[in-house]
Amino acid sequence: MDRIDLNCDLGESFGAYRMGADHELLPWISSANIACGFHAGDPAVMRRTVRGAVERGVAIGAHPGLLDPAGFGRRKLEISPDEAYELVIYQAGALLGFALAAGTRLAHLKPHGALYHMAVRDVAIAEAVATAAHDLDPALVLFGLPGSELLAAGERAGLATAAEAFADRNYLASGALVARSRDDALVLDPARAAARAVRVVREGRIASVDGEDVALQPQTICIHGDVPNAPAIARAVHDALVRAGVTITALAVRGDAG
Amino acid sequence: MDRIDLNCDLGESFGAYRMGADHELLPWISSANIACGFHAGDPAVMRRTVRGAVERGVAIGAHPGLLDPAGFGRRKLEISPDEAYELVIYQAGALLGFALAAGTRLAHLKPHGALYHMAVRDVAIAEAVATAAHDLDPALVLFGLPGSELLAAGERAGLATAAEAFADRNYLASGALVARSRDDALVLDPARAAARAVRVVREGRIASVDGEDVALQPQTICIHGDVPNAPAIARAVHDALVRAGVTITALAVRGDAG
Amino acid sequence: MDRIDLNCDLGESFGAYRMGADHELLPWISSANIACGFHAGDPAVMRRTVRGAVERGVAIGAHPGLLDPAGFGRRKLEISPDEAYELVIYQAGALLGFALAAGTRLAHLKPHGALYHMAVRDVAIAEAVATAAHDLDPALVLFGLPGSELLAAGERAGLATAAEAFADRNYLASGALVARSRDDALVLDPARAAARAVRVVREGRIASVDGEDVALQPQTICIHGDVPNAPAIARAVHDALVRAGVTITALAVRGDAG
Amino acid sequence: MDRIDLNCDLGESFGAYRMGADHELLPWISSANIACGFHAGDPAVMRRTVRGAVERGVAIGAHPGLLDPAGFGRRKLEISPDEAYELVIYQAGALLGFALAAGTRLAHLKPHGALYHMAVRDVAIAEAVATAAHDLDPALVLFGLPGSELLAAGERAGLATAAEAFADRNYLASGALVARSRDDALVLDPARAAARAVRVVREGRIASVDGEDVALQPQTICIHGDVPNAPAIARAVHDALVRAGVTITALAVRGDAG
Repeated sequence: MDRIDLNCDLGESFGAYRMGADHELLPWISSANIACGFHAGDPAVMRRTVRGAVERGVAIGAHPGLLDPAGFGRRKLEISPDEAYELVIYQAGALLGFALAAGTRLAHLKPHGALYHMAVRDVAIAEAVATAAHDLDPALVLFGLPGSELLAAGERAGLATAAEAFADRNYLASGALVARSRDDALVLDPARAAARAVRVVREGRIASVDGEDVALQPQTICIHGDVPNAPAIARAVHDALVRAGVTITALAVRGDAG
Repeated sequence: MDRIDLNCDLGESFGAYRMGADHELLPWISSANIACGFHAGDPAVMRRTVRGAVERGVAIGAHPGLLDPAGFGRRKLEISPDEAYELVIYQAGALLGFALAAGTRLAHLKPHGALYHMAVRDVAIAEAVATAAHDLDPALVLFGLPGSELLAAGERAGLATAAEAFADRNYLASGALVARSRDDALVLDPARAAARAVRVVREGRIASVDGEDVALQPQTICIHGDVPNAPAIARAVHDALVRAGVTITALAVRGDAG
Repeated sequence: MDRIDLNCDLGESFGAYRMGADHELLPWISSANIACGFHAGDPAVMRRTVRGAVERGVAIGAHPGLLDPAGFGRRKLEISPDEAYELVIYQAGALLGFALAAGTRLAHLKPHGALYHMAVRDVAIAEAVATAAHDLDPALVLFGLPGSELLAAGERAGLATAAEAFADRNYLASGALVARSRDDALVLDPARAAARAVRVVREGRIASVDGEDVALQPQTICIHGDVPNAPAIARAVHDALVRAGVTITALAVRGDAG
Repeated sequence: MDRIDLNCDLGESFGAYRMGADHELLPWISSANIACGFHAGDPAVMRRTVRGAVERGVAIGAHPGLLDPAGFGRRKLEISPDEAYELVIYQAGALLGFALAAGTRLAHLKPHGALYHMAVRDVAIAEAVATAAHDLDPALVLFGLPGSELLAAGERAGLATAAEAFADRNYLASGALVARSRDDALVLDPARAAARAVRVVREGRIASVDGEDVALQPQTICIHGDVPNAPAIARAVHDALVRAGVTITALAVRGDAG
């Protein structure tokens, strides 16, 4: 593989509250997952984030979440598949509004937090999210965990999909991520994160905390924006990949995206 | 004039709360102003309302309001023009999502409540709303009060505009509406409302409570969905216009709308 | 048993949205469970409902729910016990504000919807709710399902508790309620609901849909305010109990309540 | 004057969003104005902030704002006096819940942002806020701008009131604050802010940007928590007052507060 996408969650500020280092991350990524106002973000933040992404040539993706600002969309809420469909259409549509106003379109969609995790295992929620993405725009690329119900549902719906690996998270031998509650959940050393990113792109393997390698063929690598040194990690991953001869580019279905 | 649009606010239910008689109003109108979740409505209601409008061949319009569900968007909030722009893009974009998912587009945009009234007199807010509508989709028709800053701003922005008359509201001789707080604010008798609608379309005149006629050349007539007998008024207005030889049809800029 | 409490959920309107027939229910009940703004209700509705209860001599209880107005607090949200504690203190405190302003206090507390159901089985959530009620006011009576973790936690916390029976819901032989999704979930005939209420008070038994009786010793009977003929059911239950010589009265811990 | 209160806005974080340096400010102040969830804060933040204030012996005050989290309560919203009354009771009651759970009571109330400014000039809003504070607890001290309608209404309602001066804001010769939009709005040098605080307490005078002194007899001095070096300013003001022989203490009406 000689090309890869780098994605990061952006636009998570809200009103007077600042979160994330969006402007320091934009230079190093190719896809921005932009919060759409339900778990984070607001119309002003969305407009500003879309503008910043357009200026940097970063592809714009919707990052819809559960309507739970107090919980940042991380708490599981028992919604029906219809409700999942509707909240994806609403939020991705709102972001599409800002994209259209900026003369562009949405390139991808990645659910946030608890909705992301629900769509890994729950077929009905996964199908609702995938169908919503397809109904809004069949040219959207659906981002998700490798082997998840979400990516399977995306393929059934006729969407292009992108499996993601995490440069700054540790894995179990099973391929699952080490739970955030564990001390070794994160890979915060930029050089180590960068080396892991290069290896997973070049070799399709990433070391687990259990000693064995995990086999992964990601189309996109996720960098978390909410760790203290996120910009340093993003830059290290970006630069190491470039040095390794990998092209960092968004996953455009349309000719015009990215 | 041998054609007119009939518009009505729909989709104002929220969660477990029901408001309005949407399904009884849809047969008699040509344009639905659909609440977009800030002052009323929610993603499920928006989806259902868009579907109902599509089934009936009623044109879909965005009805964005201030973020004030507790006040139903009727309380003035001192927002900046940027904030006005952003809340219009967000809400109209969200509704566009449901329209696209239903295989259609938005036909028009009409601000709600306090935002509507602010855009009557405040040039900067009017321009923000009009620019947002144009940036989202230059084919949108902008609805507003005749002589308002909103319609002037819409014309400057290059949008088609539609001045609206009210079949079920009384007017002062000045052309202003009788304040809702007055006993004679509303025209609740279906036959009277219908006669006023026919006259304003045919003659360009509507009687004021002060005895004199008001001159009006509306492109659309608004029927309020929140009065007790709204469906009866809508039907009476519709039927009287048809009997008078007036075609009731949405104001399509695109060939496909309405 | 020659006395019983009748409780009903009130104050579920929100802004321009009306829900429930509060004023028609107040004459027949002794305890009002008042929504506190997270799943339903708002400050204006809370003030009005407290005033109505005080005028009728109905005991005022807090009815806190999950922060999910779009789902009316009926969708399970994975909150921590700390979060449960905090949302109970916040909401019951807010209602206490209106009670104090009306010269009275809170008499009881009953969680709403999904929070109620979570507190039936989840010990940690049950203890958080009970501790919050006790920390706010040790004289509060905690309402809940007979045999629930909530009532057990309330007793451990040193609170008076009240087990509730449902006059207008059908039971399984196990003592569980027939799920709302089943056709036979509700007992909407006022005379039948009334007869069931009298029997459960007088005999401690209620017929199940499976043919066998369920043994119950309720201190309070719940009447749902959200069925179409709720006031008729409430009146029938009230009148039948009075005719049977049962005194309908709130469960005061303080001398002054009810 | 040999005693003064130092107040600061605290508890303005929300969910995953952090704002303010509450723990670094608590050692230097005597009164905390705690956000109550409408413009900032949430139940978890309120509980944590109340606990921190109790541990430090800082008096707890309600800091209610308009229901406008997106605007941080700083945008004017046209509410009725009844609505002002209700939002004060609701929010101050919610905070009272946390105070009671921590074994204490509220000591004071100070409206936030746009509500504060509306209560300076609008008699009806001022009376609604003052009456709400009194109805909740007649022992509350009402904080406000010297000469404001709010303090006048508080006195008419029978409340103790406290006029506040600002150590870190510049004044016009008229006694009004220099607008935030001006470059010279803030006094960010800790030593200068401290000297101004000592002088206004000792001499009842504070220098204006126009050259003349403003006469002020404050009972409390406000330090803003949202400027970058707020803790340094708070400490400098505190230490300079102590060195000048001024006792820093809350304005207790009850014997037990502060």
